[in-house]
Formats: sequence, structure tokens, C-alpha cells
Amino acid sequence: MKTVMATGTFDIIHPGHGFFLEEAKKLGGDDARLIVVIARDSTVRARKRVPVVDEKQRLEVVKMLKPVDEAHLGYENDMFQIVKEINPDIIAIGPDQKFDIPQLNEDLKKRNIDTEVIKVTKYKNSPLDSSCKIISKIKNMEFDEKIFKKCLK
Amino acid sequence: MKTVMATGTFDIIHPGHGFFLEEAKKLGGDDARLIVVIARDSTVRARKRVPVVDEKQRLEVVKMLKPVDEAHLGYENDMFQIVKEINPDIIAIGPDQKFDIPQLNEDLKKRNIDTEVIKVTKYKNSPLDSSCKIISKIKNMEFDEKIFKKCLK
Repeated sequence: MKTVMATGTFDIIHPGHGFFLEEAKKLGGDDARLIVVIARDSTVRARKRVPVVDEKQRLEVVKMLKPVDEAHLGYENDMFQIVKEINPDIIAIGPDQKFDIPQLNEDLKKRNIDTEVIKVTKYKNSPLDSSCKIISKIKNMEFDEKIFKKCLK
Repeated sequence: MKTVMATGTFDIIHPGHGFFLEEAKKLGGDDARLIVVIARDSTVRARKRVPVVDEKQRLEVVKMLKPVDEAHLGYENDMFQIVKEINPDIIAIGPDQKFDIPQLNEDLKKRNIDTEVIKVTKYKNSPLDSSCKIISKIKNMEFDEKIFKKCLK
């Protein structure tokens, strides 16, 4: 049984998230186990933007997705610590994730972590296929203020 | 094997959605099948607000959730047509769904639909436990415009 590890922010869930995780799991064959590592709020803030949904809630949502066998928060300072603990056969990189794969392979080798890094290239198109597009759409929509009064009370 | 039907908008997914669907499925016992009906865009617009995510994408995301065996879009004009087709043993009503249950029972009886309506009362608290709270938070957050340029190009 092969263990595949995938990582990501998973801020606002869209079909591309589920598609990527399915494709990642397939890399490990029929009886693969998929473990997902969720980026910490501090990491998202440093590398991307302020996350809308906090890390605890993002973790809970990822655990609800069909391909996911386990999900954990990453560590704040050392991205390799969780890789060591999970010890995956394969690390799946998403089609839109900007890792330098030769560099990653070298960093893993340096730490004696024996894992194969594979980029998932298939991509699922949807009208809102990134958390960022969903955020941008909401920013540009007009809502009746009454709806917020009801849900925020 | 009992069939449980649950309905909803499922605009922006949060842990409460998965929790409700799990609880709904439990109502049908160990080998229950859960069929989820997603509200059409026109229905959401008429009853609630403009949905952020369109019906096709909302359907795709709901299909990715662990408790869901099947998911379908509802019909635009007759909410009972899909109930007839699915012919569920149980209809699960969410803790925050405002159905008039005696009225619903009467409407079902009038149409010779023999199903039990059960309200799920357990509720999962999260900091952002409704699509509306997530939308409101985004509306009030400040983002660097650069992040949108990248994701919208």
C-alpha cells in the first residue's frame, strides 16, 4: 500500500481541489492512502495572502472530501518535518503549485527522505476554479445588507 | 436499505455542511444511502440571495463530500417532483433550514408521497459556520489587488 502526500491551502473549496486530490491518490495505485497537509495560517500569510478561513476550519473541510484518508496541519517553520513523519512514497504537486521540483528533490535527498515527487498536470476547469477567483467574485458582487444582518446575529 | 434525502444551497462549503449530511445519513441506519438535492440558482435567488457559485459547480462540490452517495439539481418550479423521483424513506431537514414541517407533511401526503420528515437538530459550531458569514468576512477584508491580477489573468 502506497502513501501519497498532497499539500495545499484549501481556503474556499472548489471542484479543482477534489479533482487534484483524486488524481494525487491515483498516483499510488488502487489501494493508495492519501494524506493531505494543510498549510498553516502563518505560512499562507507569508507566501500568498491572508486566508479567509482559519487553519482549523480548512482542516475540517478537507477531512470531509472523499479521496482524503487523513489530513493534518503542517508545521510553522520546517516544511520537511511533516514529510519525515508521514514518510510518503509519493509527494503529489498540484498543477497550479509553484514548487521548484529539482530543488525540492535535492532538499529531500539532503534530509534522507526517500520519496518520489510527481507533478499532477491534469487540470479541472470550472468557472470559479480557485479560491482567489471566488474571493474576487464576492468582492465585486452587490448583496442586500439584510442578508448579513440575519446570518451575523 | 433506507434512502435519506437532504437539500440545500451549499454555496460556500463549511464544516456544518459535512456535519449535517453525516447526521442526515445516520437517520437511515447503518446502510443508508444519502441523496442530496442542490437548490437551483433561480430558487436561491428567489428565496435567499444571489448565489456566488453557480448550480453546476455547487453540485460538483457536494458530490466530493464523504457522506454523499448521489447528488442532483432540483427542479425549477416544482420542489416535489424530485422527491417523487427519489422516493426517499426519510427527508432530513437541516438545523438552520426554515421549513414548516407540519405543512410539508401535509403537502407530501396530498401528493401521495410516503416519506418521513425529520429535523436534524445537532449543530456544528465553527467560526464561519454559514456561506453568508464567509461572504460577509470577505466583503470586510482588505486584499492586495496584485493577488487578483494573478488569479484572473
